[in-house]
Amino acid sequence: MAHQREEDLFLYEKVASEFEDLIRQGTFRPGERLPSVRQLSRQRNISITTVLQAYMLLENQGLIETRPQSGYYVRSKLPILLPEPEISTPLQDPTRVSVRELVMMVLKDSTNPELIQLGAAIPNTELVIPVKLNRIMASLPRKVEHQYNTYDIPPGNEALRIQIAQRAVGIGCNLTQADVVTTSGCLEAFVLSLRAVCHPGDTVAIESPMYFGVLQVLESLDLRALEIPTHPRDGISLSALRFAIEHNSIQACMVLSNFNNPLGSCIPEENKAELVKLLADHDIPLIEGDVCGEIYFSGPRPGVCKASDRKGLVLLCSSFSKDLVPGYRVGWVAPGRFKGTIEWLKYTTNVATATLPQVAIAKFLASGGYDHHLRSIRRLYAGFVAQLSKAVERYFPEGTRVTRPNGGIVLWVQLPDYADSLELYKQALLAGITLAPGYIFSASHQYKNFIRLNAAWWSYETDRAMRKLGELVAEQQG
Amino acid sequence: MAHQREEDLFLYEKVASEFEDLIRQGTFRPGERLPSVRQLSRQRNISITTVLQAYMLLENQGLIETRPQSGYYVRSKLPILLPEPEISTPLQDPTRVSVRELVMMVLKDSTNPELIQLGAAIPNTELVIPVKLNRIMASLPRKVEHQYNTYDIPPGNEALRIQIAQRAVGIGCNLTQADVVTTSGCLEAFVLSLRAVCHPGDTVAIESPMYFGVLQVLESLDLRALEIPTHPRDGISLSALRFAIEHNSIQACMVLSNFNNPLGSCIPEENKAELVKLLADHDIPLIEGDVCGEIYFSGPRPGVCKASDRKGLVLLCSSFSKDLVPGYRVGWVAPGRFKGTIEWLKYTTNVATATLPQVAIAKFLASGGYDHHLRSIRRLYAGFVAQLSKAVERYFPEGTRVTRPNGGIVLWVQLPDYADSLELYKQALLAGITLAPGYIFSASHQYKNFIRLNAAWWSYETDRAMRKLGELVAEQQG
Repeated sequence: MAHQREEDLFLYEKVASEFEDLIRQGTFRPGERLPSVRQLSRQRNISITTVLQAYMLLENQGLIETRPQSGYYVRSKLPILLPEPEISTPLQDPTRVSVRELVMMVLKDSTNPELIQLGAAIPNTELVIPVKLNRIMASLPRKVEHQYNTYDIPPGNEALRIQIAQRAVGIGCNLTQADVVTTSGCLEAFVLSLRAVCHPGDTVAIESPMYFGVLQVLESLDLRALEIPTHPRDGISLSALRFAIEHNSIQACMVLSNFNNPLGSCIPEENKAELVKLLADHDIPLIEGDVCGEIYFSGPRPGVCKASDRKGLVLLCSSFSKDLVPGYRVGWVAPGRFKGTIEWLKYTTNVATATLPQVAIAKFLASGGYDHHLRSIRRLYAGFVAQLSKAVERYFPEGTRVTRPNGGIVLWVQLPDYADSLELYKQALLAGITLAPGYIFSASHQYKNFIRLNAAWWSYETDRAMRKLGELVAEQQG
Repeated sequence: MAHQREEDLFLYEKVASEFEDLIRQGTFRPGERLPSVRQLSRQRNISITTVLQAYMLLENQGLIETRPQSGYYVRSKLPILLPEPEISTPLQDPTRVSVRELVMMVLKDSTNPELIQLGAAIPNTELVIPVKLNRIMASLPRKVEHQYNTYDIPPGNEALRIQIAQRAVGIGCNLTQADVVTTSGCLEAFVLSLRAVCHPGDTVAIESPMYFGVLQVLESLDLRALEIPTHPRDGISLSALRFAIEHNSIQACMVLSNFNNPLGSCIPEENKAELVKLLADHDIPLIEGDVCGEIYFSGPRPGVCKASDRKGLVLLCSSFSKDLVPGYRVGWVAPGRFKGTIEWLKYTTNVATATLPQVAIAKFLASGGYDHHLRSIRRLYAGFVAQLSKAVERYFPEGTRVTRPNGGIVLWVQLPDYADSLELYKQALLAGITLAPGYIFSASHQYKNFIRLNAAWWSYETDRAMRKLGELVAEQQG
């Protein structure tokens, strides 16, 4: 892999990850002191800053604590790792989606300021919008450049497409701006892609569980979902997909490679290549989502399936909604051989994406502020995910399982078998808390006893809400 | 009609229109002097400003001229009124649309700064974006109000929906903000409306000619267009529509009531009410476009069919793209009884419309700047349309007809029978001019010898381009 530069930038994460292993495996036991910052810096020949960053990350994860005038110590009560959910076993027949009303309720909850927001996976716009982006956006209208106010017709803003292509090259995709079409967010990229490669009645093989927005899109386009078993860490099961392809007529496959929402899975690099090959052998287009690809908590930036695409069959979809600013509604697709159709479908959807938001993001990316911003939100979300995990562990009844995602902004919680997530959703609402019930993540209403939690916020209120949720789950046992 | 306030604002247009009639009918003959500004002000008991505005409008229309130290005179060579095109007579069978490539070419022409832009109907963003709107947009990101950066999920921005509802009340629609869903432009409102009321394979009765974007949308949704004869002044023929309803299975009807693009027709108020009744009698939803409703050149603001809607069957679609700013991509639909479906379809299209552009327009409307702005663009476009008309008259060969729209930003030109608009499009491109060939305005490839001209600009260059176009048409006779 050619991520040398990126790896250097994230040296502190490597160090932290190494120490996490040392702590988990007992090299450093609870209550023991870690090497001092100066020691470790000398030993490893790394900067003081890097050591401090590594220790801060471990602290965020609840593994170590700092004692004034003394140093860093392994915490006496280490966070217990709950077991991860098992690999999913959805129904094996294509099924029509129909959870429309429930989805619209969960969405509308997200605008209710009275509720504790554990429902919709909305990034933390109170904390993560870079001041610099706001400043750029504010500067644009004053320039009265008339082209900023006119249509940016498909394929969309060129300056932005250049930035997108440059970053794609960084993860092994040889794209130029001519290979990219901008869209109004990633969901629109998914819709255009599905419409480009499918007809009504067609079957799409998808990871399961799957972000409910995608399931609603399938329903709205009259497409059938064939849910493929999906591992909470490694994503779609290739053997199950192979079996499905051999026994069904499948017109497209769709995966959220980094990181599945809600599962948090990240398809390993070798599986990505194999997935592309498997589908290419059957001439099945792959629609790949990568909205959280930049929000990884350790290691190098995960790659994309698109990098292995030799036949132009992979439609890579992403956006700036999760890692930069949701309200701008700017996404994109690199549609391979389907580009002409995608441009036409984009025109027949809404002519063009709003111009100013595209220009602002292009200028922000060109200014170099994006990578700095990404580093800070990775730390932020890694911390929030860890806090939320700990709260599940602390407050939820025995038998609960929870994912351990290495990226993204959500947790997927498997409640004990007796629990019903729809009942829990209703009871939680009465208690002023919104969450996403498991039902809506499956076209066949699987995941009765699962919930998705949004980890983009953390506060005392969240902690209290989690305690309340735990109590509500426990009460369901009665 | 209850437009008392609006009528007062446009008194000067009534005066101008009266004098136009007096001049056309010969009361004031070429070379004769009009009443002095002071005289007319006294005679009519109207302000000096109103008289000056009326005379300026007549001057823009080429009817009068001012002679220094002397007054206003009827011009010696009055603009000749070319005959209007005849009522359209499209094919009477539902036809599949297929002019995709040509449409995408015309669109892409619009981004080529080397070309004289007579093609895409793009408003004049060099002249008409209010400084105040730019200022408001620039002020928003600096406030770092986090809700400006998050999703504005369906039905969309409330402040904007309130403004839209208030203005709708002004034209006789009793809407509240709860009756409005914001969209990414009017085309998206059309798409959502069509998807809400039709299924693939259904037939939609439409005015003919019809904006090519709508025809492309029909094709993309696998809907059939049934083209109804349409009068260049009065819009859709109600008798033809009645006949069509009685002899076909029609699932929806679509009209651009004020003003049809490309035809410039404006359905008379009594016809609007009758149209709504005719469709309601057959329970057929009406999708009504009103993007140019505010860009009328004289008289009161034309009304909308929606005002007569008693069964919730009219889906009124509009946007701020033609009269304010195209690049923001902000439109809306008042979908009557289909609101729930429209909200869901909006979510499954792209989650939400970009937030900042909606907030900026809402604040601009609330500030009261919109009406002032509309008055100035009405004058501007009335002048450009008149100039372009004159150029057609001056440069195009005998047998040419041209519309006399009372609003909008386009002219529809019927060339002599021998002319082929596709050939003309190609030849014009070689000469550095782009236009919209008639073919793309019909699902059945009617309008071989028609072209649509964009009247949103006027300059010496445009005049030269029109002379060249006239020559190219004449050469086709050979």
